[in-house]
Amino acid sequence: MTYGTKPRIVIVGAGFGGLAVAQGLGRAALDITLIDRQNHHLFQPLLYQVATAGLSPADIAWPVRHLMRRQANTRVLMGEVQAVDPLRKVIMLAGGPVAYDFLVLATGASHGYFGREEWAAHAPGLKTLDDATAIRRRLLLAFERAEMASNPAEAARLLTVVIVGGGPTGVELAGAVAELARRALVRDFRVIDPRQTRVLLVEAGPRLLANFPEELSRYTQHALERLGVEVRLGRAVTHCDAGGVRLGEEAVRAGTVLWAAGVTASPAAHWLGVAPDRAGRVQVTPDLRAPGLEDIWVIGDTALARNPDGATQPGIAPVAKQQGAFVARAIEARLAGRAPPSQFVYRDRGLLATIGRKAAVIAYKSLRLKGWPAWWLWGAAHVYFLVSLRNRLIVVTQWLWSYALFERGARLITGAGASGVRSGPPEPPDG
Amino acid sequence: MTYGTKPRIVIVGAGFGGLAVAQGLGRAALDITLIDRQNHHLFQPLLYQVATAGLSPADIAWPVRHLMRRQANTRVLMGEVQAVDPLRKVIMLAGGPVAYDFLVLATGASHGYFGREEWAAHAPGLKTLDDATAIRRRLLLAFERAEMASNPAEAARLLTVVIVGGGPTGVELAGAVAELARRALVRDFRVIDPRQTRVLLVEAGPRLLANFPEELSRYTQHALERLGVEVRLGRAVTHCDAGGVRLGEEAVRAGTVLWAAGVTASPAAHWLGVAPDRAGRVQVTPDLRAPGLEDIWVIGDTALARNPDGATQPGIAPVAKQQGAFVARAIEARLAGRAPPSQFVYRDRGLLATIGRKAAVIAYKSLRLKGWPAWWLWGAAHVYFLVSLRNRLIVVTQWLWSYALFERGARLITGAGASGVRSGPPEPPDG
Repeated sequence: MTYGTKPRIVIVGAGFGGLAVAQGLGRAALDITLIDRQNHHLFQPLLYQVATAGLSPADIAWPVRHLMRRQANTRVLMGEVQAVDPLRKVIMLAGGPVAYDFLVLATGASHGYFGREEWAAHAPGLKTLDDATAIRRRLLLAFERAEMASNPAEAARLLTVVIVGGGPTGVELAGAVAELARRALVRDFRVIDPRQTRVLLVEAGPRLLANFPEELSRYTQHALERLGVEVRLGRAVTHCDAGGVRLGEEAVRAGTVLWAAGVTASPAAHWLGVAPDRAGRVQVTPDLRAPGLEDIWVIGDTALARNPDGATQPGIAPVAKQQGAFVARAIEARLAGRAPPSQFVYRDRGLLATIGRKAAVIAYKSLRLKGWPAWWLWGAAHVYFLVSLRNRLIVVTQWLWSYALFERGARLITGAGASGVRSGPPEPPDG
Repeated sequence: MTYGTKPRIVIVGAGFGGLAVAQGLGRAALDITLIDRQNHHLFQPLLYQVATAGLSPADIAWPVRHLMRRQANTRVLMGEVQAVDPLRKVIMLAGGPVAYDFLVLATGASHGYFGREEWAAHAPGLKTLDDATAIRRRLLLAFERAEMASNPAEAARLLTVVIVGGGPTGVELAGAVAELARRALVRDFRVIDPRQTRVLLVEAGPRLLANFPEELSRYTQHALERLGVEVRLGRAVTHCDAGGVRLGEEAVRAGTVLWAAGVTASPAAHWLGVAPDRAGRVQVTPDLRAPGLEDIWVIGDTALARNPDGATQPGIAPVAKQQGAFVARAIEARLAGRAPPSQFVYRDRGLLATIGRKAAVIAYKSLRLKGWPAWWLWGAAHVYFLVSLRNRLIVVTQWLWSYALFERGARLITGAGASGVRSGPPEPPDG
């Protein structure tokens, strides 16, 4: 290869995967361009706590260019990919083209509705900070509206929350919503009793946390039921509108429906003109390249990667991070004229999910942890992986405060529709 | 008065004034209804720090119903007043009517554009949390766009911030924007140098901080100029559009224009059918009642109240708080059959404004403080007045962090238009 200047590496996506590539190449003599639609890297594992008013957006997000400020070989651009031209080796952003020698696509996934995209308006999913503040607004407004509802049936509907999908996000949301209603809000209302809130967790498969060992799925279900969550297994949502959901025969009238079921990969496969799998992912080679494209790697939630034994690598942060580090090594080897590693193998870092106060589950190799030891370990691990010391201090402060006093610090209704509540007269004119 | 049940006090607005009324009546045998458009009480004096990425929204706001949770005689409603009927003693919310025996209007003010409301789209003001996150988005996006700008003139325009209005909000914004650009962002960009950011503070009057003693106005101007802010006195904005502003003959091309000039009171005068002053305020009686209306008080930024010497009471938090406490005492006296106090007198609590790191001004009676002693006192006073210990801990953590490391913790671009930057090609296809 001959370059006019240094080799140009373009990384699209500043999530766990993209960031790991950039950091892995931090000292190399390269021109790295790191592109993201947002200006911030997001610590997605704690996003459900923003949605349920426990943490603030800034507690779990950092400006990408601030994270890269000391890495002189990297520039950061805020932009959105519109197309990739593998022949000319150029990606198109809204603002214009960016040329690359090596390209890494780490563009993640968003929620999918199995072809029923019209449900998105009624059942928002949780992937971005704006999703989280929108869900927080919906949840908190439902309580405000219930307090002013003109009849008990409407209040009961408003106090029903349906969470669709029994994976980690669904479990974490269900536990956090139940605790919000039963603990943090208890004394704040005069007409309604927030403890009457009905939380349903709907899962189409036979058990919660399908990726976890069965005993932990059973524990999770019992722990959620102790919190008052109704768990419905083997039930799929067949209809969804502004009034609630339908689960086959059963109609559930609900004020809030949250979607944690389907995931659709970013359009990376479409950009590259390769065949996606059912979830829209690029089916990558063992060394994480797009099939047939020598200089393009695809990692994280937008890739379908397999271990040598055929097992699919799960869509979690440790996989994306290890893949990113692998791609950085592969690029360095290519540039040095060495043979790049031929197979990425995911080294299991365990599976974690939290259910609520003093309840979590951890599966790591043959280890099974549940209850409060798992909860404390979950908390410690998440604080440890937060990107900066400043955020660790603030998150720990918020957590200890909530732990001691059962309060939630970020119960703000902001954004579109924040001002004014439009349903139900508060009382007759002459009481 | 004969009541079927307890006397009904309706308070509209949960700012400093409305909250003080409710808290002053906390133990009385009354039915209090506290109504606000938002679900939160906002500590407005620190709002400019949210707009400039120093603090998070939840650090300076608390759910109103959480603040009232232990006050059993008070219910909280989220809603917006549409009309008041003083004859039937009823206020109309979107959801229906609410009857009162005594009514307190503490509905505040919003920014006014002197009849040029079309400027609002180009020059947002700062009154709510959504205003603050929208301004933060505009400021941070301007830097992102400048980094990708196709020519230096456009980059220079994007790096120009005009702040209109030299009162405390304008001064605080100008200082905070200058420090954001010159300190917090310095290392984060590769193409632009954020220190080149031009910050203009435009004031139509002859000096900054017109309410303060002249020597503090002079100090403030010098301190801002040391930070690199260009102060333009005696200059009014004559035109404003997406490209910038015009100050009479001088055209200033700017990427961000912020409005801290005009204030318009809420429509309380219109609801009551009384004549407002030029700023839309209700001209209240010496005991803070609406003229001619026995059972309606108007306080805070939506009232024009005067001390016995004729001096107008300023639109600041201590005035609203003292007025609220006065109204609570007046209502208690009326209900007990005692003569209510006939004249509210504002006891001066001083004027404070902060300029930047280690620079603030304080005027309290004959005392004049400036520089770092004023700055430390300003910080201590603001932390002291934050409503909860939790927020004090978090704000102090953020401030100490910023103080030591010059970083800003909440540099998030969120909300409408957050994803994607649409101006200027980043580079030619083959660099």
